[in-house]
Parts: sequence; structure tokens; C-alpha cells
Amino acid sequence: MTDTISAISTAIGEAGIGIVRMSGKDSIEIANKIFKDEKIEKLKDGENRKLIYGHIVDPEKDEIIDEVLIVYMKGPYTYTREDMVEIYCHGGVIPVRRILELTLKYGARLADRGEFTKRAFLNGRLDLSQAEAVIDMINAKTDKSYDVSLNQLEGSLSKEIREMRDILLNMIAHIEVSIDFPDEDIEEVTYEQLEEDAKRVYKKIDNLLSTADRGRILRDGLNTVILGKPNVGKSSLLNAILRENRAIVTDVPGTTRDIIEEYVNIDGIPLKIVDTAGIRDTEDLVEKIGVDRAKEMVDKADLIIAVFDMSEDLSKEDKKIIDIIQNKKSIILLNKTDLPVKLNEKQIRKILPDKKIINTSIVKGIGLDELINSIKDMFYSGEMDIKNEVVITNVRHKNQLLKAKNNIEDGLEAIKLNMPLDCIEVDIRNCWKNLGEISGDTVTEDILDKIFSEFCIGK
Amino acid sequence: MTDTISAISTAIGEAGIGIVRMSGKDSIEIANKIFKDEKIEKLKDGENRKLIYGHIVDPEKDEIIDEVLIVYMKGPYTYTREDMVEIYCHGGVIPVRRILELTLKYGARLADRGEFTKRAFLNGRLDLSQAEAVIDMINAKTDKSYDVSLNQLEGSLSKEIREMRDILLNMIAHIEVSIDFPDEDIEEVTYEQLEEDAKRVYKKIDNLLSTADRGRILRDGLNTVILGKPNVGKSSLLNAILRENRAIVTDVPGTTRDIIEEYVNIDGIPLKIVDTAGIRDTEDLVEKIGVDRAKEMVDKADLIIAVFDMSEDLSKEDKKIIDIIQNKKSIILLNKTDLPVKLNEKQIRKILPDKKIINTSIVKGIGLDELINSIKDMFYSGEMDIKNEVVITNVRHKNQLLKAKNNIEDGLEAIKLNMPLDCIEVDIRNCWKNLGEISGDTVTEDILDKIFSEFCIGK
Repeated sequence: MTDTISAISTAIGEAGIGIVRMSGKDSIEIANKIFKDEKIEKLKDGENRKLIYGHIVDPEKDEIIDEVLIVYMKGPYTYTREDMVEIYCHGGVIPVRRILELTLKYGARLADRGEFTKRAFLNGRLDLSQAEAVIDMINAKTDKSYDVSLNQLEGSLSKEIREMRDILLNMIAHIEVSIDFPDEDIEEVTYEQLEEDAKRVYKKIDNLLSTADRGRILRDGLNTVILGKPNVGKSSLLNAILRENRAIVTDVPGTTRDIIEEYVNIDGIPLKIVDTAGIRDTEDLVEKIGVDRAKEMVDKADLIIAVFDMSEDLSKEDKKIIDIIQNKKSIILLNKTDLPVKLNEKQIRKILPDKKIINTSIVKGIGLDELINSIKDMFYSGEMDIKNEVVITNVRHKNQLLKAKNNIEDGLEAIKLNMPLDCIEVDIRNCWKNLGEISGDTVTEDILDKIFSEFCIGK
Repeated sequence: MTDTISAISTAIGEAGIGIVRMSGKDSIEIANKIFKDEKIEKLKDGENRKLIYGHIVDPEKDEIIDEVLIVYMKGPYTYTREDMVEIYCHGGVIPVRRILELTLKYGARLADRGEFTKRAFLNGRLDLSQAEAVIDMINAKTDKSYDVSLNQLEGSLSKEIREMRDILLNMIAHIEVSIDFPDEDIEEVTYEQLEEDAKRVYKKIDNLLSTADRGRILRDGLNTVILGKPNVGKSSLLNAILRENRAIVTDVPGTTRDIIEEYVNIDGIPLKIVDTAGIRDTEDLVEKIGVDRAKEMVDKADLIIAVFDMSEDLSKEDKKIIDIIQNKKSIILLNKTDLPVKLNEKQIRKILPDKKIINTSIVKGIGLDELINSIKDMFYSGEMDIKNEVVITNVRHKNQLLKAKNNIEDGLEAIKLNMPLDCIEVDIRNCWKNLGEISGDTVTEDILDKIFSEFCIGK
């Protein structure tokens, strides 16, 4: 990790300002090769953190590349804890690319995804859960998911993990002393004390895990599939929801290109509607993509909205849909209540006794509020107090917590059975280790690579 | 212009860093309301241009919004010549939006498109042609068009305009002295001297205008339409060109969304291929969009590439295409030379005697290099020396130059006819005024509004 990395840190596009940043010990040397100004001969320590106006120049051709502001930030008080240089240039595609190329030509290496943040982690500025919060903040789709990630960056999850690991480490220490010096006159650990400590850890893990489902939805959206036969009103429903609740997320260039998903922000819940060509472009989802494919989508969904046509009898397709949704969390819309009613509502209620059923006329806007409220009730019974709660949004964290929970359960079992202390210690130590993978204290290089590969370049 | 403006200055997207910037006298006051740090109580003059680490906080709720670097830049040594504050936050959609909202809540106004640069112009930091260069740099599609704009930003065009206006102003001064004090003992202006000066200006204008066609192509691309009957190989041709020469332009998220044009960078020439659904998705352009529409596209084109099938006789559609392209700059491809030849090449050469004709087998890659070279020869006979030449890329500049050219021609005519000095003065003054609209010395508010409305927000 002694080389100097460089990357474009702003989104690519036609904008006012673009940033090329470097981190590593040669940053200032490379910058001094390509930065020229009449007044300032070279960037030096005295200009630490000072924005300096000048030009990026290709030294070989002595050609100006752009008019810029440049800043040298001396480590260790930087994002990566290394020396850094940031160049603020014009925001088009060409200037950032050309300046990046110059930094690479004069000694920097193109940064990997997330490599700046990885260095921040490896140099101890952030723990791993904080580093992961950074990319979640950048990718956040709603204010709520942003707040959760910001809390995590500020160390809320780190603190919880640290507290648990402290308890566990204390347990391990006591156990080891008792094993190593059984005869000496020191306070021996009691099974009662171990059980109490283990239960405290268990409870904390359990509390965190209880937030994981909401956390995942906060972060990734409520995976929603709209099902219904042709002309039942699926497109109208999608459009009505989008029109009423269309959120910033879908206004962002880049995030909606080539997507198969639409995000809608419903009072902070990101509703992710699976937006296959099927749902949008054809009224005939089941037929077009086939029942198998629909089933697959349904399997992955958190919520199905199934739409039936009140003005027609139940068709073969309707029955297929009813089969598909039997065991899924779903909301039933009986649509076209504005037309003469043919469908027997009771029949539906009988076939789908446990489902929330709403009468709608989507074209007239009737029933939409009830739908939205039902979704909110279903997933957010009781408001979340995001600001004061640690929420698990990350699948990796959830999995580590599940492992740690197993460990501590095994430990508790062993304690209750009065097993030998060294047996108990194994479980406690595993729990401590698995929690440590969340904060990054015990993490492997493979896992790090995987985590940071999900970052954007330049962060 | 006493209010303080605020905008997001980076492209919106999931990236490492985003920037919210303010300009105006309240920038620092607004920043101090929403920026908090343990060490730094308030931003103040002593911290001019210094990057400071801290948090943006919603003061009402006392909630942290993001971890940021902030910089206060005291006017007049700033981009706008006003006090400015820039906030470097996480690059996601949410943080930039929330910080922008806070600045607006605490006293800033959302900046109009290009308003920062407009202020830079109004405060005399840039002349108008330099301001226009800024947005051209940001939108530049190739290195060459970027270089031309950068030259313009660095004042190359401004200098030319200033030189001409100085000559003209000198002429006006001499004329006025001669008119006002005809009897006094001062050197009277001679018609010979006036003619010499006017010719110098005329020559300069003419030189600039001679670059305008290449300049427009550099900036906006060579508007190219591919014509040919179904299955003649149009799609293959487009794909072959794209595959070989696909440039950064089309890799940029945001610029290619919803486009109907493909840009290909051929040795610095942006080839803009009109990419209607017709050309790409159906082999049958003429039939699908109709001959009228094709004609319209052809009228706007700089270049037509017409493709004929050597393995078939001339069809009705081929003949239509031949009619369409008769009077247009075009290159004829006789394609499918790998198949048995049916088409009489001489017949084509006879009907289209002045056209460049190339035998190709697009699927086998034969003839493509010749096509590319022909395009280059056609539009770039002789390499441009971008770095040392002032190139007119802007239609507005071209139109002003044309007006100024008319004025100076009228003036020259009047001089030759020994017309009264006050008649001559009118033409010279108009010429001076029209050139002044390029540099912005004599520009109206309407024109300014129009120019800056084409900027991106945040610049």
C-alpha cells in the first residue's frame, strides 16, 4: 500500500465541477509535475489544505489542460490518512479524463473501486461497518435509508459491536485465567456470571437482528410485483403510484438507465416495483413471461399487489394468479368498481381469506390512498425512530449476527450444561470473532475485496 | 445581483464526492448557520480558501446531515468575484440535495442555469466569449473541440475581437475629430488610411469566418445520415463504425440517454450519426419514415453515406435515394462486393459523376478504412493546428461576424465612393458594435439570458 492512487471522484456528466483525487506519498510530487501557476511555483507543506488557483499543464507538450483549483492535504488528517491532492476542474467528460490520464502518466495508479475508503479503513480512520456506511450513503434511495447509513458512519453500529465484543473478551479473559491458574487465589469465573454475560450479548444480538428486515427494505426497497390479467389496470396502477409518489430516485440520470426496477418513495419507504417490459409494455404479464417466470418474481417479492377486474368473471389467468399468491404477503385490488360489477367479491374473499382486499377504481383514483396506507401498515407498524435506533441494513452484517447468535446460543447451552470451561470458551471466542468481522477487526482480505468491489470508483 | 445563489455543481449520480456551492455576500453567513465543528466555531476571513473538516447540521433539529469539507473563498479572487462557499459532501443523490435545501432554507436562492458564470461575466472576470467557452468545455465531445474551447476560455478569441475593435474605435475617433473640428490644425483622417484600416478588419473577420464550418463540426459533430434500401448493410455499417471508433462520448451516462444521435470520434472529428429508430431498428429507412422525412434529415446533414447493393439491380428505392443525394455532400458505398456482382458500377458513376465512390464489403470489413479516410479528407484537408488557431465554433459568434462583415463591406464601399465621413462612421460603428456582442461589451440582457440558459445548473 505504498503506491499512489488516482481516480475521478465525481459522477461523470456535463456539470460545473469535476474532481480528480490522488492519495499516497507521491501525490504532491505528481501534482507538482502537472500543476503550474504564475505565483505558486510548487505545492508544499505550507499550503496544506489551501485551495490554490492555477493550471494543469501537460509538461511534455507544455500545453494547458484546464484551469483548476488544487488542494494538497497532508496526512494523517485526511480521508485516507495519507497525503492527498484534489484537483477541481471543469465538469465535462474530457477535462477529468485528461487530468486523470496525466496523473497516471506521472506516477499514480488508477484506484480500484472503493480504494480510498479501503485505505481509510486499513489506516484505522474508519472501522469496516463505517466504511460500508459510506457506500450506502452514496447509494441511498430515500432520506430514511440515508439517515440509517449516516448513523452507521458516525459509529452507532460500531459502538454496539464494540460493547458486545468487550463483554465477550472479558468473559474469555476470565475463563482463561480460571483454566490457566486453577489453583491460585484469584476470583474464579462462575457459571452464573458467564450465563448472565452471555444472555446480555444474546439479547443485544437479537435486538439488532430484529431490525434487519426493515433495514433491508429501507436500503434496497420493498420488492413489489404487480400481477393481473391483461387490461386489468396494472399499467394504470403503476402510473398512478409513480405520479403521486415519484421520488428523487427516479430523477437521477444513470440510476434509471437500463433498469428493470422503479423506485417510488412512499413516506420514506422505497417501494421497488419490478418493472419488466412485461409489466409496463404489455398488459399481459402472465402470458408474456410465462407462469414460471412470474412465479420466480413472486418468490423474490416482499409484496404482491394482485389486481382483479370487478367488471368481469374470474378468468383462467385470474385463477393462476390466485394460486401463485396464496402463500405470499399480498394485497388484493378489486378494480373497476366504477363499472357494472360481475365478479363475486365474496368468492374472492373466500378463496383468499387472509388477504387485505381493497376496492379500487384506479382510473378514478379511488382506493389508492388505502393501498398506500396498507403497505405502510404492513411494513412499518409503529414509526421507526431512525435517529436513535441502530438498524441493520446490510446482509453481510445480518449474516454475521446470525452466526454470532448461533455461537452465543451454543455457549449458553454449554454453560447451562456445566460443560468444561474450554468448551464454553470456543463458542464465546467464535461469537467474538464473528462480531469482529462486522467491525473489520477479524476480517479476511477476501471479504475486504468483496466489500470494496461494490463501491464506486473514486471513493 | 445582491442575492446569494446556491446550486449542486457536480453531476448527479452515485459518486465519491458531490459539491454544493454558493456565491454572494451572504454565503459565509448561511454556511455558518449549517456548518458545525468541534474545533472551528465559525468560518471567517482568516480561513479564506482553507478546506475545513466538519459536519453540515440542520440547526432546527440539531441533526447531522453529512460529514463534509467546506471552504470559504473571499471575493474578489473567486470564480464569480463574489464571496463563495463550497461544500464537498458525499456524492450520492440525498446528501447534495439535502445540503442544497438547507442553504436555500437559510437564505440562498436556487441558482439559475449558468448563473455563477453569468456573475463572473457581469463582474468582469470573463468576457462573454470566454463565458461561452466554459459551457463548450463542459459539453466537449472530443479532445479537439475541448482544446478549441479551452483556447477560447484562455482569451484567444477575445484578443482577436479586441484587436479589431481597437482599430475600429481608432477609426471612429479620427472620423469624429475630423467632423467636429474640421478647421483646426489637427491631422485629418484620410480616406486612404480609413480604407487600409477597414481592409485590415475585413481580412481578420474573413479569416475567422473561414474557420466557422470546421468549428461547428468540431463542436457539434459532422451530421451524418446513412441511406440505403432494406438489407443493403446500413446497420452493419453503423455497427462497424461504432465498433472501430466508439469514443468516450457514448460511454457517458446521461449523455446517451434518450438520444437520437450517436457520436463517434474519428481521429478527433465527432461524427454524429443520426440514429433514428429507422436507421438502427429497421432496415427500411426510406419506407418507414417516408421519403419526406428522409429528405428533411438529408437537408440538415453535412454528409450522406449512401449504400447500394452490388449484388442486385438498382431498385426503385435506390433511385429515390440517388435523387435525394444529388446535390448533397455524399459518399457512395457500393456494398456486397463479396457477392456476385449484378449492379452496373458504371451506371452509378454516370448518374453520380461528382461523388466519391467506394467499393465495400461491410461484413468483411473491406472498404471501411477508405470510407473513414474519405470523411477525413473531405472535412479536414490539412490538419488543423488547434493550439495556435482561433476557431469559431459558436453559431452566435458566426452570425455576429457575418453582420460585422456586412458592416465593414458597406464601410469599404462608402470609403471607396468618398462618401461623407458621418456615413462611413455609421458602418464602422455598427461593425464595432456587432463585434462587441461577441465579447459581450455591447450585449443586451435578452441575449445574455439566452446564452446562459444553455448552461448546466451549478456552473
